[in-house]
Amino acid sequence: MQQTRLDTDRIRAARRVIDPVFLGTPLYRCEALEPGLGCAVSIKLETANPVRSFKGRGTEVVASLLAERGPRAVVCASAGNLGQALAWSGRGRGLDVTVVASRFATAAKLDRIRALGAGLELVDGDHELARERAAEIARYDGIRLVEDSLDIETCEGAATIGLELVEALEQAKPGEQAKQADLAETAEQAQTADLADPAPPFDAVLIALGGGAMATGVGHVLKALAPGVEVICVQPLGAPAMTRSWHERRVVTTDSTDTIADGVAGRHPIPAVLDDLLLVADDAVLVQEASIIAGMRMLLDHAGLVVEPSAALGIAAILEDRDRFAGRHVVTIVCGGNVDGDAYRRWVGAAPVPHKA
Amino acid sequence: MQQTRLDTDRIRAARRVIDPVFLGTPLYRCEALEPGLGCAVSIKLETANPVRSFKGRGTEVVASLLAERGPRAVVCASAGNLGQALAWSGRGRGLDVTVVASRFATAAKLDRIRALGAGLELVDGDHELARERAAEIARYDGIRLVEDSLDIETCEGAATIGLELVEALEQAKPGEQAKQADLAETAEQAQTADLADPAPPFDAVLIALGGGAMATGVGHVLKALAPGVEVICVQPLGAPAMTRSWHERRVVTTDSTDTIADGVAGRHPIPAVLDDLLLVADDAVLVQEASIIAGMRMLLDHAGLVVEPSAALGIAAILEDRDRFAGRHVVTIVCGGNVDGDAYRRWVGAAPVPHKA
Repeated sequence: MQQTRLDTDRIRAARRVIDPVFLGTPLYRCEALEPGLGCAVSIKLETANPVRSFKGRGTEVVASLLAERGPRAVVCASAGNLGQALAWSGRGRGLDVTVVASRFATAAKLDRIRALGAGLELVDGDHELARERAAEIARYDGIRLVEDSLDIETCEGAATIGLELVEALEQAKPGEQAKQADLAETAEQAQTADLADPAPPFDAVLIALGGGAMATGVGHVLKALAPGVEVICVQPLGAPAMTRSWHERRVVTTDSTDTIADGVAGRHPIPAVLDDLLLVADDAVLVQEASIIAGMRMLLDHAGLVVEPSAALGIAAILEDRDRFAGRHVVTIVCGGNVDGDAYRRWVGAAPVPHKA
Repeated sequence: MQQTRLDTDRIRAARRVIDPVFLGTPLYRCEALEPGLGCAVSIKLETANPVRSFKGRGTEVVASLLAERGPRAVVCASAGNLGQALAWSGRGRGLDVTVVASRFATAAKLDRIRALGAGLELVDGDHELARERAAEIARYDGIRLVEDSLDIETCEGAATIGLELVEALEQAKPGEQAKQADLAETAEQAQTADLADPAPPFDAVLIALGGGAMATGVGHVLKALAPGVEVICVQPLGAPAMTRSWHERRVVTTDSTDTIADGVAGRHPIPAVLDDLLLVADDAVLVQEASIIAGMRMLLDHAGLVVEPSAALGIAAILEDRDRFAGRHVVTIVCGGNVDGDAYRRWVGAAPVPHKA
């Protein structure tokens, strides 16, 4: 693999400064989802933590560096999850955190940012305007700007998900199972080692693609340590800038976005992040809004998970291309669960009307 | 502490035979819940695994012992979660699993038991009739009967939750934090160590009480290793047999149950389990159905968690006695998430009608 900006040793070091509450997240097969998808599906669950998204992994790295050395005031633009995570990580370290967001951002995310004690400035435009405004504040006030996906700490923090996936893969290796079977003292024990996991190890990981921190982070680790695993990025058709850029191998911007997946709705890919993505992604696909909603519903009905639209992109990708995944074992990273209750009920409520007994 | 039937060393050993997919579950503060409850609340999440309940911890111990030595056929009575977990653990080890359940059990649980390849026999009565029928099958067919809460493996498997809670407590100790502050090389680092967790360590654990496996298991470990933590069991008013038994210090049975919390709706407490519970529980409280539903709604709206009624008992207990918990830090074990979609929608759907924007 050609060199990305990321470094595997630094990613291992990052894991030592991240609060353990964000690490070692559940990874488990969800067989109840499988009849509807036609393949084995494992979930890597990034929502069971104090900020309900994977973003804490990155902000812990950012904030611990700042707490050690560097300015104690920091600003970021956010669709909501990065801001919430930076507010959490900053509060624990006495940092002064300002978040700039679109006034159209998910209200539940904005409420949590405020509750965590961060300053919140809303802009009358989309996420790209929030990015511009955050940069302006940083320049004007002379404080640190945290740029999601551009700042290497945000990528390397997210990349620790990749380390956990690779470790799970190593434990599930046929070689390892055979070794355990060899070590078994009885035929029964050998059989146990064989039967312990009826699914083959996973061979693809579906990653929500927005700015690219998670995709380049997890992708870097997989390509470095488990190159046989297919790295597939998934973005909404309504916010396709990074995916188009990946396919055309040059930055492609869009004038607008039209998706419920607020967490990945960027329009201006960052060139350095695209360069990394070109090195680590095997594919980048676009999915329709209806598939995202169907994915959210499946995760609710068959996995008992309340997820935000970005976290359903992986399931949406399987739904749109069953043949590609048929018979395989796929991991989907459920990356966030911050939703507005009303919007969420509208999305999943279009399911068959509850039967009143 | 007087001797329970449980053994802390055996519980540590149990952890080594349980599939890691059931271990090291998320434990995190959920601040979004706290304004509504008036105390710091941490969630111990036992639903992000292949069977969506804590029962896999116990069935892994049972099944690994059977796979090593003992009969390869096994039967249990179950309200659904034990059966699903035993089916999962047995499948991986080539065991022949039969589950007996009430035909009124949660359909989603029964569907999963069948999907996991176990034999399922339904009885035309409640869980106590299923228990009788399972014992009959075991006698008649000469196969192993797994009795939830009576079989020590089911208690000691569940008790591994307690080990994880105690470990978290030790990491959060003021002594530990001070040690980290002492080791800090700079004033900033010292401040970081102080500020890392703004909540005091937890001082109470709320445990759903049914047959008593989880309550005696977790309670045993807490009383042995963290005796200062209050162990509070919570049961529905509509299924109060074990709680009444605890208060009267003798087995009290009831003629019927009337609760949506199917996972804890027993009528005939097991004497040996009651004896253990008397040694490890600091209190046992009863809560109303309306509080259970309110707890489920709060966990959905503020924590993004779909939980079954039994898993909301802890929140229900706080709602019914805010003064008792005011200003404290409480852990509630979210023990299961298997619900029928329609019933769940009815329960949580009575929330304020979604506001259409």
